Amino acid sequence: MLRKKKFRPDWTETAPEAGTIRSIVKYGSPCAFKHPSDGWVSMMMEEFGMTAADFSRKQDEGRQKAVLDRPVSLDARHVERLKDIAGEHNVVTDDYSRIRYAYGKTTEELMELRTGIIKEAADVVVHPRDKADVARIVAYCNEHVIPVTVFAAGSSVNFGVRPARGGVTLALGTHMNKLLEINEANQTARVQPGMFGPAYEDALNNAPERFGTSRRYTCGHFPQSFEYSTVGGWVVTLGSGQASTYYGDACDIVISQEYVTPAGTFRTREFPAEATGPKVHDIMKGSEGAFGILVEVTMKIFRFMPENRKYFSFMFSSWEAAVDASREIMQGEFGRPAVYRISDPEETDRGLKLYGIPSFVDAFLVRRGYRPMERCLCLGTVEGDGDYTRLVLKKIRKICKDHGAMCLTGYASRKWEKTRFTEPYMREDLQDFGIQIDTLEASVTWDNIHAVHQGVRAYIKSRPRTMCMTHASHFYPQGTNLYFIFIMRTSDVDEFRTFQRGVIEAIVKSGGSLSHHHGIGRMMAPYLEGYLGKEQMEVLKSLKRHFDPNNIMNPGGQLGLDQA
Amino acid sequence: MLRKKKFRPDWTETAPEAGTIRSIVKYGSPCAFKHPSDGWVSMMMEEFGMTAADFSRKQDEGRQKAVLDRPVSLDARHVERLKDIAGEHNVVTDDYSRIRYAYGKTTEELMELRTGIIKEAADVVVHPRDKADVARIVAYCNEHVIPVTVFAAGSSVNFGVRPARGGVTLALGTHMNKLLEINEANQTARVQPGMFGPAYEDALNNAPERFGTSRRYTCGHFPQSFEYSTVGGWVVTLGSGQASTYYGDACDIVISQEYVTPAGTFRTREFPAEATGPKVHDIMKGSEGAFGILVEVTMKIFRFMPENRKYFSFMFSSWEAAVDASREIMQGEFGRPAVYRISDPEETDRGLKLYGIPSFVDAFLVRRGYRPMERCLCLGTVEGDGDYTRLVLKKIRKICKDHGAMCLTGYASRKWEKTRFTEPYMREDLQDFGIQIDTLEASVTWDNIHAVHQGVRAYIKSRPRTMCMTHASHFYPQGTNLYFIFIMRTSDVDEFRTFQRGVIEAIVKSGGSLSHHHGIGRMMAPYLEGYLGKEQMEVLKSLKRHFDPNNIMNPGGQLGLDQA
Repeated sequence: MLRKKKFRPDWTETAPEAGTIRSIVKYGSPCAFKHPSDGWVSMMMEEFGMTAADFSRKQDEGRQKAVLDRPVSLDARHVERLKDIAGEHNVVTDDYSRIRYAYGKTTEELMELRTGIIKEAADVVVHPRDKADVARIVAYCNEHVIPVTVFAAGSSVNFGVRPARGGVTLALGTHMNKLLEINEANQTARVQPGMFGPAYEDALNNAPERFGTSRRYTCGHFPQSFEYSTVGGWVVTLGSGQASTYYGDACDIVISQEYVTPAGTFRTREFPAEATGPKVHDIMKGSEGAFGILVEVTMKIFRFMPENRKYFSFMFSSWEAAVDASREIMQGEFGRPAVYRISDPEETDRGLKLYGIPSFVDAFLVRRGYRPMERCLCLGTVEGDGDYTRLVLKKIRKICKDHGAMCLTGYASRKWEKTRFTEPYMREDLQDFGIQIDTLEASVTWDNIHAVHQGVRAYIKSRPRTMCMTHASHFYPQGTNLYFIFIMRTSDVDEFRTFQRGVIEAIVKSGGSLSHHHGIGRMMAPYLEGYLGKEQMEVLKSLKRHFDPNNIMNPGGQLGLDQA
Repeated sequence: MLRKKKFRPDWTETAPEAGTIRSIVKYGSPCAFKHPSDGWVSMMMEEFGMTAADFSRKQDEGRQKAVLDRPVSLDARHVERLKDIAGEHNVVTDDYSRIRYAYGKTTEELMELRTGIIKEAADVVVHPRDKADVARIVAYCNEHVIPVTVFAAGSSVNFGVRPARGGVTLALGTHMNKLLEINEANQTARVQPGMFGPAYEDALNNAPERFGTSRRYTCGHFPQSFEYSTVGGWVVTLGSGQASTYYGDACDIVISQEYVTPAGTFRTREFPAEATGPKVHDIMKGSEGAFGILVEVTMKIFRFMPENRKYFSFMFSSWEAAVDASREIMQGEFGRPAVYRISDPEETDRGLKLYGIPSFVDAFLVRRGYRPMERCLCLGTVEGDGDYTRLVLKKIRKICKDHGAMCLTGYASRKWEKTRFTEPYMREDLQDFGIQIDTLEASVTWDNIHAVHQGVRAYIKSRPRTMCMTHASHFYPQGTNLYFIFIMRTSDVDEFRTFQRGVIEAIVKSGGSLSHHHGIGRMMAPYLEGYLGKEQMEVLKSLKRHFDPNNIMNPGGQLGLDQA
């Protein structure tokens, strides 16, 4: 064990060269890295039977220049017209842009890109300056039946930004990325859709200095992809943040939306509730660019009171006890935690090892009945008013103790918080050595959480030497979300794809939802009709025909609305 | 004053004779009455300049038999076929049923009915036994292009149940009124749409005895029409209960729906959240019978803990102070009250008079700076876990005090609770003497609450001798709902209609929503396109064409989807 720990692969520590595939594949800032810990390395060597030699040569690093073998298929006069609309500098057709703005961050597409497979590319990338540009572009493209796909932060994990039919890709993160207004009376913020999470949160935290407000605010929405996700993306994909148990999902936080569609431009009202028939505001949530383009959004904001935040963590002796306590917390009618997660036995044990739990602590835990591959870690935070956070924490402590849990102070929770956005950075390092880490998630109800957990785990573990770590996060009185992390050694994209699709099928077969917060895109699309049923799928198709009769909005399989 | 108080009109105290118009007009149980208090009488005499003589003769009591001047226009073979489907006894074509199941409870239609005006009537009333009956009836009616309108509890205040094109009216409250299942793990209840509020709440409160559950539950939804509203009605009209500030609106409480539509039958999933594209579950909320018929619904339920309920009431020195304190409470991030209302100065003062506040108490209030036609009453409850309700009440007290309010204990709140469902019973008495009491409501944001309040009040008060009492109820961090009660003396239905439509126009013109929880129906329908804009209205029309290509579902103006 000691010997293995000392071994440390030659992780890449330099920013990818400009213009290379690797610069497209790499997650996050080009200069930011988070390498697998020594614990990770020994775990992988052990699990996958790898030796130091296996970590000596990197494969498919994607160092090659991003070059396309196909010309722009869009007529030059269209490109010129787009330049008239959005400005010369905002319309590009270089190979790099055509690839960079065509890819999200699924394991599958990263594997392909690294090996030189480029399936889809935009014909032209436009960086619209404002919503008026978007309206003119959509009108023009509709008239000439040119596909329009939206790209914002590019962290899609479902092929949702892939320009399946080529055409125009609109990069909304370039210019349309501003916080336009804070309405302090209503506690809302009017935002451009391409604003990235950190810039948005920073502006809200510093609202007194930037907007002259009397208070500081928070957006309340912190998905793992926070650094590379946008406010508009949260809404159109039905995202959910790590603190959603308290603040709500993106669909709860958005209060009004403005869309440009081939069937016209509209803005929904900003009332917190209305009884005015079916709400177009609701209909557009989760439309994933297939009905139109979100060009402005009004979000609820919340008072920022980090001084009141409380951290907690507990160890349960079993998954069942952790689930039962969590249900009691969510149904207890005393308020809710913000972050709340319970890790299953495999995730708990791997986590303890990875974070280097001292052996005497482990021995202590075992003595107290918290045994390896049975015990489950729970961690989280409480946010809000100070008296409220004190009360909710007290209640959580009581319920956890009643369910046999041991309080571990807030240490694990604080530690988790520090790295909560940076886990995806490890993917480059792992892929350099042919190791794939991927995640899938599903909503569950309390009465089927165990069936889904067991069913999906059984499928994943049926593949030899495959790790499966699961946690529940995003809690509701009626259920939660199960998040499956699987890690496997393979460089064969076809094998990976088949296996990964098998996980999706295992989720649905065992009773989970097709997606809790990752959206549908093109990856889940083939399963959507089976999941919703033909009648509900026909409703979506009918809306598609209404908004987009020429099928130009993110065409080619998005949401399963047309043939991929 | 003393003289007037002694005078008491000869209120009707007998149940309406069976088969009469009055038995249709009367609100609630035939044998239940709630007469205006002596305070009410003196207030009306004073405001309307009425004398005892004006209260000596009742007008348009509707004692006549409910008789129709038109035959069933539906072909007899259709009626026979409906009998084959739903059973002989469940298909009726008598005049009384054709009228009774064709009317809601707007002031306008009650005025008309009393004077013998019967505008619309069903051709045949069917009492389906179950969802299979509904599916067969809808399929048959779709094939033969026969209009289908749904009637449940009949307390609609927007002409939403009026069979504008005749045809079949389905009375869902007769047989489809059962609580089918309580899922205690998920805290949900599966319910038939025609179950009335009290029966539903009673079953949940007594769930251990009736369903063998370990706990008692509450539905959390208590509209003023609770006694004469159904679970399905709450959902399809986007209702909101008096405790919505804590429990949420009907759209938040419903978790899954099953519909029969001409385009097929479907059931939405029961997950508390999903990122699976636009949700048909959302699309159907508020569809008001125009897309299809809700035949089963799964609702969130909540732990029933009346022992923890706290009552509070406060007096503020001004409407502005009451609004500011309320906003602070709703945005304070410490939890929320369940019931919460603030009455404007006119409602507060009339309320104090009506409830007979002793003059020494009034003098005391005035001395403390709470002056007539300035002061505002706030009342409410806190529900949930005991420690939680204590905390929330403490916070509310502190904020109210900081805004200059005086604590009045929970007395007013308890008093309000006792009669909260029975106010509508007074309408028969008032109408007997040509006095109309009506209400309209609107969502507002915090930054336009004063503009809407003043704008609508100005319109109502522009009519001489017209009372206008307003309160805010149903609160959110982003705004609230304004509820306008206007009382006027007129027996002229045309005058009333014109004035009442003027209130709607004043609401929208001053920036309120077209409806907060009364729905659209046919009354608001002519305003809907102007309110939503053409683009959003076209989305609803396109959904209508999808679900109901033959326009048989509640046709004739409902939601403004076809011509009235």
